[in-house]
Amino acid sequence: MNKKEIKVQDIKAFLGEDLIGVFGDDTNVFVDNVADVEHVNETTLDWINPRRLNQQEIAENSPARVLLVTSKVSYSEAMEKLGKVLLVVKNPRLKLAKIIAEFFVEKPKALIHPSAIVDENAEIDPSVAIGAGCVIGKVKIGKGTVINPNVVLYDDVTIGNNCLIQAGTVIGTDGLGCSREADGTLVKFPHLGGVVIGNNVEIGANCQIAKGVLSDTLIDDGCKINGLCFIAHNCHLEKNVWITGDTMLCGSIHVKPNTTIYSNVIIREQSTIGERVTIGMGSVVTKNVPDGETWVGVPARKLEKQ
Amino acid sequence: MNKKEIKVQDIKAFLGEDLIGVFGDDTNVFVDNVADVEHVNETTLDWINPRRLNQQEIAENSPARVLLVTSKVSYSEAMEKLGKVLLVVKNPRLKLAKIIAEFFVEKPKALIHPSAIVDENAEIDPSVAIGAGCVIGKVKIGKGTVINPNVVLYDDVTIGNNCLIQAGTVIGTDGLGCSREADGTLVKFPHLGGVVIGNNVEIGANCQIAKGVLSDTLIDDGCKINGLCFIAHNCHLEKNVWITGDTMLCGSIHVKPNTTIYSNVIIREQSTIGERVTIGMGSVVTKNVPDGETWVGVPARKLEKQ
Amino acid sequence: MNKKEIKVQDIKAFLGEDLIGVFGDDTNVFVDNVADVEHVNETTLDWINPRRLNQQEIAENSPARVLLVTSKVSYSEAMEKLGKVLLVVKNPRLKLAKIIAEFFVEKPKALIHPSAIVDENAEIDPSVAIGAGCVIGKVKIGKGTVINPNVVLYDDVTIGNNCLIQAGTVIGTDGLGCSREADGTLVKFPHLGGVVIGNNVEIGANCQIAKGVLSDTLIDDGCKINGLCFIAHNCHLEKNVWITGDTMLCGSIHVKPNTTIYSNVIIREQSTIGERVTIGMGSVVTKNVPDGETWVGVPARKLEKQ
Repeated sequence: MNKKEIKVQDIKAFLGEDLIGVFGDDTNVFVDNVADVEHVNETTLDWINPRRLNQQEIAENSPARVLLVTSKVSYSEAMEKLGKVLLVVKNPRLKLAKIIAEFFVEKPKALIHPSAIVDENAEIDPSVAIGAGCVIGKVKIGKGTVINPNVVLYDDVTIGNNCLIQAGTVIGTDGLGCSREADGTLVKFPHLGGVVIGNNVEIGANCQIAKGVLSDTLIDDGCKINGLCFIAHNCHLEKNVWITGDTMLCGSIHVKPNTTIYSNVIIREQSTIGERVTIGMGSVVTKNVPDGETWVGVPARKLEKQ
Repeated sequence: MNKKEIKVQDIKAFLGEDLIGVFGDDTNVFVDNVADVEHVNETTLDWINPRRLNQQEIAENSPARVLLVTSKVSYSEAMEKLGKVLLVVKNPRLKLAKIIAEFFVEKPKALIHPSAIVDENAEIDPSVAIGAGCVIGKVKIGKGTVINPNVVLYDDVTIGNNCLIQAGTVIGTDGLGCSREADGTLVKFPHLGGVVIGNNVEIGANCQIAKGVLSDTLIDDGCKINGLCFIAHNCHLEKNVWITGDTMLCGSIHVKPNTTIYSNVIIREQSTIGERVTIGMGSVVTKNVPDGETWVGVPARKLEKQ
Repeated sequence: MNKKEIKVQDIKAFLGEDLIGVFGDDTNVFVDNVADVEHVNETTLDWINPRRLNQQEIAENSPARVLLVTSKVSYSEAMEKLGKVLLVVKNPRLKLAKIIAEFFVEKPKALIHPSAIVDENAEIDPSVAIGAGCVIGKVKIGKGTVINPNVVLYDDVTIGNNCLIQAGTVIGTDGLGCSREADGTLVKFPHLGGVVIGNNVEIGANCQIAKGVLSDTLIDDGCKINGLCFIAHNCHLEKNVWITGDTMLCGSIHVKPNTTIYSNVIIREQSTIGERVTIGMGSVVTKNVPDGETWVGVPARKLEKQ
């Protein structure tokens, strides 16, 4: 992390209406780092977790001058003496994430690395960053999307705006659905569809996303899929689906919005997973899962609330 | 998919003896696409699934002019009036797969992409296609095989004819069998074997296939292994084994012909899996599995027929 | 394997104090290969597994002239007549592994392949080998480390001495921890930490190792991690941890020294796995595991000794 001084006034401007209140004099006050609890210093932008019972005590003891807090933390005389600044927000962790993304993360430059091999018919917005060693077929890529090194996009892949594809991921392979002939020979059904990925999607490293058989595999806006996942042919992930890694969705699975699928899960082909569902890690899902439920286990079953 | 007109007469010639019967006048009739059920139009090559109870009704209602059907579908007066053509075959889906592969899938050109790095002692048939970014050691590759981008083949890998290796896969790494010394230090047993892959084998994206310790890892003719699989040292897959993705075969596993292993399975090292076996998705296989059985679960057990 | 003649006297010198005894006249005796049991010939360096009940009989029947044995095998008259040489050691398999690594495995040359893309601020020891197609960010790499082709190292990755990274692995990606806003939108917490890998570490093909959120992901000396593993943000693997492949450690997991985790395991975030623990293949670990225990199953439970 490169240290650079961020003025508290710039953070206040960035938070805008999400800033419920400010305590302390922030004139000429800056932060220059974020840190885990063992490494907080005077110029760290610290935050107080609202789940802690003793938020006030933690805030009093933080070595940091500037803290993101909820309204449960009050501005004490001791804080005033130390010149502390409290930025009051509803969800300090979420706001910290957004502040880090805005001020502490370097945005990649729009650039197709000269070592990337790009099909001459690809339609790539000039704001896109494509890393070294990528191999890019006849695809469409929207504004602000970042493709990290050694990614392979086959033909007929469409990626929207502001997406991030981590290194080594392969998008648009054939699926491998087969029929057996009488003598056991496997005949693969060729795949003629594509993959359509929406906006603000992130996909982790070394994944495989297969194209559809005759129509497209669909990953809608806001989905976040971590590394080593395999999304097979004709799946449709609606918006804001979160998959935390090493999970396989077999073919033609429909996942409805705002669902979370934890790691190393396998879901049977042609299943429907409802809205706001949670699937526990290591689950083997063999049935449709209704909206709002939590399923876990092998085979996965509904987890009743206790 | 590029649309091009395919004459029904060419399809008839391709089907040859597999064509049981033809109804309707196919003079000057062509198809130019295949499609899923929502997108069938007049020039789609449609097919009627023999598992459906109402095949005749589905066939009557298809907007397509040309249909692959079984002999359960009869040529009605209505069909005749509409100028429809029925191509009667035993297994319409299998035949559709073969027709698509023949007429609708563009074959990659024989070419070693200039960005691929190939060992000067590799023996590669001139008909082979090697994609951008591949790194190819001292290997042998047979006629008509296609290696997609960013694949790595270590030394001592042999691949037969008409194989397809999807992007990002790595073949021929060391295994990582270790002994622990008294103080806990791990000493890896070096791997001196190779990998030998037969003809008509397909391997999905981002797999790892390890070489044998002192002899070779073997993947015989006609095996189809989908993405993110890990085939460890000294496995022997006999012909037509199908693995649908994200599965790991630990070391020295013997899989007999025509067996199907579904996704996210783990099989214990030194197991023998019989012929025509089916292993259900998510299974943890800790024992040998006899010929013809279906095993599922954690740990996997025989599924009795119901 | 290239055959070259290795003098028994050089092997004796290499074994040094680990050589308990020698029988037979080794003047001008050499070996030129190692082989599995079906392929042993006169010039194979053979070994007798101390777990076998009939070690003496196996040794008598080996076609090889030179054998690594324990002191349970005695030098018979028949052996003397055949001019055999016995090298007596405590652990023949471990010693064989070391002899192979020393005499039969070609060391890669120190070289950054011209097709690799390396950040100009990377600090790479001149003895390092970096394969074709690698993309290397602002990293530090120590003496004698080998990076195989198409590996991607993001910024802020440190790798120690004598490590081996197999092809296609990606180290230093962001993790993908998210918070959901009220409308379901996923906001990713940016990752500002790094990855620090010690000495003598091996990592298999097509893995993903994520950097820490605010501090570093740590993989200490002597760890061996096989292919397709996902080590998430802020994990800390202490020395000599062995993971045999296709396993995921969710975030902030602490694994103590000399522990073995078998294949296709998933471990819940923030767990602590003790020293000298064994986790069985396919396990789903949802709790902390105390020192010295063996856990298996879904969810994993302690395996009592029988």
